[in-house]
Amino acid sequence: MFEFELIKQSTTTKARRGRLRTPHGVIETPVFMPVGTQASVKAMTTQELADIGAMIILSNTYHLHVRPGSDLIKAAGGLHRFMNWSGPILTDSGGFQVFSLAGQRKITEEGVTFQSHLDGRRIFMGPEEAIAIQHNLGSDIMMVFDECTPIPAEHEYVRQSVDRTTRWAKRCKEAHDRPEKQALFGIIQGGLYPDLRQRSASALIELDFPGYAIGGLSVGETKQEMLSALDYIPDLLPVDKPRYLMGVGTPDDLVDGVLRGVDMFDCVAPTRIARHGLAWTSQGDVSIKQSRYERDFTPLDPACGCDTCQHYTKAYLRHLFKAGEILSARLMTLHNLHYMLEIMRQLRQAIEQDVTSEWARDYFANRRATIK
Amino acid sequence: MFEFELIKQSTTTKARRGRLRTPHGVIETPVFMPVGTQASVKAMTTQELADIGAMIILSNTYHLHVRPGSDLIKAAGGLHRFMNWSGPILTDSGGFQVFSLAGQRKITEEGVTFQSHLDGRRIFMGPEEAIAIQHNLGSDIMMVFDECTPIPAEHEYVRQSVDRTTRWAKRCKEAHDRPEKQALFGIIQGGLYPDLRQRSASALIELDFPGYAIGGLSVGETKQEMLSALDYIPDLLPVDKPRYLMGVGTPDDLVDGVLRGVDMFDCVAPTRIARHGLAWTSQGDVSIKQSRYERDFTPLDPACGCDTCQHYTKAYLRHLFKAGEILSARLMTLHNLHYMLEIMRQLRQAIEQDVTSEWARDYFANRRATIK
Repeated sequence: MFEFELIKQSTTTKARRGRLRTPHGVIETPVFMPVGTQASVKAMTTQELADIGAMIILSNTYHLHVRPGSDLIKAAGGLHRFMNWSGPILTDSGGFQVFSLAGQRKITEEGVTFQSHLDGRRIFMGPEEAIAIQHNLGSDIMMVFDECTPIPAEHEYVRQSVDRTTRWAKRCKEAHDRPEKQALFGIIQGGLYPDLRQRSASALIELDFPGYAIGGLSVGETKQEMLSALDYIPDLLPVDKPRYLMGVGTPDDLVDGVLRGVDMFDCVAPTRIARHGLAWTSQGDVSIKQSRYERDFTPLDPACGCDTCQHYTKAYLRHLFKAGEILSARLMTLHNLHYMLEIMRQLRQAIEQDVTSEWARDYFANRRATIK
Repeated sequence: MFEFELIKQSTTTKARRGRLRTPHGVIETPVFMPVGTQASVKAMTTQELADIGAMIILSNTYHLHVRPGSDLIKAAGGLHRFMNWSGPILTDSGGFQVFSLAGQRKITEEGVTFQSHLDGRRIFMGPEEAIAIQHNLGSDIMMVFDECTPIPAEHEYVRQSVDRTTRWAKRCKEAHDRPEKQALFGIIQGGLYPDLRQRSASALIELDFPGYAIGGLSVGETKQEMLSALDYIPDLLPVDKPRYLMGVGTPDDLVDGVLRGVDMFDCVAPTRIARHGLAWTSQGDVSIKQSRYERDFTPLDPACGCDTCQHYTKAYLRHLFKAGEILSARLMTLHNLHYMLEIMRQLRQAIEQDVTSEWARDYFANRRATIK
């Protein structure tokens, strides 16, 4: 279980085509994971996710811990049964939300005491708690409890944080007694400091995880800073283990990440922007509220095969959005997720055929042509 | 077209089993019509409506007139194409909303000047306008422009209103030049006054409409007052034309209406209460927010075959509702509509087998047993 097979490597880029086996099915990489923060990918059913080709979804340990509680989900038979998703699930460790969402917090060597963003009650979470919760959830891939340092941050603070995150990773591994049923991935931190990224990677590789995530990006740095970091961080990681870039990103980011050797991605962007009326398309971004679409009786994206584009016009989608109809969120979300998954499908095919450079060149040329 | 075939009449009740042909398909009666006020049955796709057996949906002329405008929908190819529903559509005339939703209004013989509930702009609507809008929408069944008088209301006021509604109905008929493509139904008014219901029915029957609606109920009267009115109003109507009870109601109301000879119903209740976390089930009403369901890992309704009951537990539905997830509205709406349509399916079958009385007796006995 959790065997990662490297099927093909691009000869002109660092892109990789892989396959990861999990107890709930095979994941073909590179892969994008739709985010179901509260045990629901917003506005979607799990059947719809399967229909558009989602191979794995992500859910958030922090959110499920504060509501409805992981013991309830365990009693329901685990997260898969609770939310009716039979494919693989990755859960984050809660670390990111503890540091970004929760109220007043105190970090010690033991872990973090914080206030729930829902009702302000005090909660303690450390490595052992994060693992216990993820055991209750029963996810296929769990993440170690880490501190995601902000950007910018002082070198000294980040170094101390990286070392603590390493100690926490070790404790997570020790607390994890069922590696055959649930994989535990390490998380590389270190901000924008190459020496600290190296330090983090070396220490975690020594702990020998079945997969490694790149954390601490997409937290306020510029796009160029992120790309610079992605130019070297994946090279610090074992070639035979999956690499997961946490919380990234836009379609462009996914392509940039794949070209740099990343295998897995997750982001709330496609679902969130959909609810705000924004669609990604092969003809550029479409802000459906604009009056230019009032009588536009063409699909969001004429090149798209999703149900939204097959059956509905921009004029109708604009009407739904203006009228505040739930169907607006549904149809826009379906399209954006389909668009992301389709890009990943095309990338996987391009890597198999070793035409990744050509595919990416065409992709970015089209993007430049469609930016309005 | 619009031929109404009476297939079977119950020998022990006034229930009727009929079939109405329209340009977009056949409607088996008695029938419940889900309401898509703003060209969307809230939270549902039209494919889902078809999947659960909806045979006709209703949309609101007033709402579509103020947004996005019926000329836009005409340009889209009509309401069917605009909203991607290939089955029959009934549109109301806008009368009800003009009198219940709109701001400051002035009624004259010509029609009504009112303020849009969206932006306050002044709009005039009379019989000719209501027909022109419904022509633009291209609904299979249109309704005459009427005044829906409140309950209670003075006899003299209701009499004058009924006579004006009759004159408006005549003007609607004269303005309607395509009776082969769109049927126009008359609307009986008269409040709770039997003599005025008789007066309204006689005058409208003289105008010879292909169907008749009972308007002006479910507007504040008691349940007993509504049932008393339904005890005689359907008998005032031609036996060979479909009878439509506007804006009614709960599952119980539908059964009561069918037993009294009504063929068609519409109501926002199943979709609206679903969004507020309330489900109708064979075991009684379920208010999903209640803490008793926190760890209830059984379906909303064990006797139900809908996707919600097949795949999700009350505990999950409660979590979704508490978390404010869109999926909550979707799954609850799907169940409630399925429940309504299933009751109508069973009623049609009971009438065919001439066991309507027995079916209704069992239905109400079960309802009494499950009221908590």
